[in-house]
Amino acid sequence: MKRRDFIKGAGIAAGAGVAAAASSTLSAPAVAQERISMVVVSTWPRDFPGLGTGAQRFAERVGELSDGRINVEYYAAGERVGAFDAFDEVASGNAQCYHGVEYYWKGKHPAWVYFGAVPFGLTYTEMTAWIRYLGGQELWDEVGDEFGLKGFMCGNTGVQMGGWFNKEINSSEDLKGLKMRIPGLGGDVMAKLGASPVSLPGGQIYENLVSGSIEATEWVGPWNDYAMKFYEAAKYYYYPGFHEPGPILCSTMNKSWFTSLSKNDQLLIEAAATMENDILMAEFNAKNGQYLTKLVDEQGVELRRFNDDVYDAFGRASAEVFEETRAHDDLTNRVHESFLNARQEVGSWANLADTAYIAQRNRVLGNS
Amino acid sequence: MKRRDFIKGAGIAAGAGVAAAASSTLSAPAVAQERISMVVVSTWPRDFPGLGTGAQRFAERVGELSDGRINVEYYAAGERVGAFDAFDEVASGNAQCYHGVEYYWKGKHPAWVYFGAVPFGLTYTEMTAWIRYLGGQELWDEVGDEFGLKGFMCGNTGVQMGGWFNKEINSSEDLKGLKMRIPGLGGDVMAKLGASPVSLPGGQIYENLVSGSIEATEWVGPWNDYAMKFYEAAKYYYYPGFHEPGPILCSTMNKSWFTSLSKNDQLLIEAAATMENDILMAEFNAKNGQYLTKLVDEQGVELRRFNDDVYDAFGRASAEVFEETRAHDDLTNRVHESFLNARQEVGSWANLADTAYIAQRNRVLGNS
Repeated sequence: MKRRDFIKGAGIAAGAGVAAAASSTLSAPAVAQERISMVVVSTWPRDFPGLGTGAQRFAERVGELSDGRINVEYYAAGERVGAFDAFDEVASGNAQCYHGVEYYWKGKHPAWVYFGAVPFGLTYTEMTAWIRYLGGQELWDEVGDEFGLKGFMCGNTGVQMGGWFNKEINSSEDLKGLKMRIPGLGGDVMAKLGASPVSLPGGQIYENLVSGSIEATEWVGPWNDYAMKFYEAAKYYYYPGFHEPGPILCSTMNKSWFTSLSKNDQLLIEAAATMENDILMAEFNAKNGQYLTKLVDEQGVELRRFNDDVYDAFGRASAEVFEETRAHDDLTNRVHESFLNARQEVGSWANLADTAYIAQRNRVLGNS
Repeated sequence: MKRRDFIKGAGIAAGAGVAAAASSTLSAPAVAQERISMVVVSTWPRDFPGLGTGAQRFAERVGELSDGRINVEYYAAGERVGAFDAFDEVASGNAQCYHGVEYYWKGKHPAWVYFGAVPFGLTYTEMTAWIRYLGGQELWDEVGDEFGLKGFMCGNTGVQMGGWFNKEINSSEDLKGLKMRIPGLGGDVMAKLGASPVSLPGGQIYENLVSGSIEATEWVGPWNDYAMKFYEAAKYYYYPGFHEPGPILCSTMNKSWFTSLSKNDQLLIEAAATMENDILMAEFNAKNGQYLTKLVDEQGVELRRFNDDVYDAFGRASAEVFEETRAHDDLTNRVHESFLNARQEVGSWANLADTAYIAQRNRVLGNS
């Protein structure tokens, strides 16, 4: 792992292959700068729509914003380490950044899940409000500090679909014994309802669904799920998902590496992450509707809405899971309290603004 | 207006006060670079919460991202030119960028309004999907090209409140003869309903409301409106607004200046705008709920919801206004068609995702 040497005044940079300028007339901002090496390990398959391409775009943009000074090497899941080994690779300093969802590290510390997605949690706009302005980032940093990590929001999928099932789900009884891929606290909720949840990285879901090792899976939404071809093995596509209403895709840094960078380089990396946070959400919203139509019209997928009884069961089980999760330690409890506060405060505003407006727009335009 | 001289190899930059490096060993990315001057004229009062502070943060961030190479001078409304003179100042090349809302330039070309906000239009997430992935930016660029301008999204207020009234609005009859500050097509809708709309920059609304020159005004939402002290002159605060569901705050460049910059400098400016697009929305969502409580509890503001009859009247009048607007020319018609397509496509997805989820979350948690 290279660290940045800041060259002041006349001098020649050390390090092999480093481009440097030497001049007695040098003054800011025209200073010579060493190239910085940044290895990004990802939890997504290469070129996977949205999740993978968004992560790759973030990596490329760090290079572009720095005009090539930060040299980013991007490794998709399995190219350097397995998807779920990304955390250790970065915490150990073997790589500088991972791209994924923080709930994958629930086993390391339960507080991580809140910075990915939790049941009955925050939508994209609520999540950005919490993280940026209602104490979320500070708590994320506190969890990260326990592992030498520093996370940034770097994309969001928006409200996810409820998942793919090979039978109809008419009551919570239908979930009993169901082998379903669903990570994070959503999986714990399913377990409360008698299902057998498993956490699998994206690249391993299809084979398990086709082989029958799992009978149901959630993944993301129409754009992503179309690429996964889940419709070949499960016919019923349920909405709305209770489990991931606005999951943060994160670019999380090895903190000691990140803080060793100049303020400008830190800002350029944060800029790339923040751009992707806005851009990827736009891409998901633009493409999900188009791909939902393809799934239904081309692949004969049956769209189903979870009924109130099923949702009530999700609600009861989620409340139990939250109580168990927050009881883990003081930090998790504080994260939970902060999350609850944001959901109440921002959620109340959203009901007056977005929700009230959309209801009237739908009514007046005759949409549903 | 300075243009950037790119110094290659050995050489001394021209231009007074320019920092430059000269060395025969120079190679990318360590090249000497001239300082670039960028004047931003704003349509907002200095330090005005959200709108002003967001614009100022964008300006500062351009400087920071470029490590000081791009030197930004920011002028609030009236400090260099009046709010509504910002367009001409930038189109003429006297300044390099304005920050505002594009519907202010409705008189220059009606197509501008779609890149600000239109009645029954797009929410923040729908708007970013349209602009980035469903043809919106290309059409914005086409409108901009007629004036030598290039716009970027640089913030959003989210769904706005319906406005401040000194009497209750129980039917569209109550709007007849009402003198109201409301710009863009929203103002045209109000005119159809017999009101007298006026467009005033933010800094002039309060004095007109207190003096009685206007009897009602819309502005933004609780956080912004609290700072404006409208509650001193109007008691009833209506929601949801039909007229600005997700207005784009723009940083719009003099195009010939912008395209004269290096690709890296162009990207740094775009990065600052895109960051602000994400960050300011988060700030509005975090603070609106808090300030709504202050308005009601501290200032005795009466919160009112527009009823269905009033909303139906807004709907009928908006349909008329749209037909007249799109009839202006082919370009406006194409923008309108593209906007309608995005509203249908992204709006349908949002109903399945965000709207369906929030309805269940509210029901299960007992919120409203």
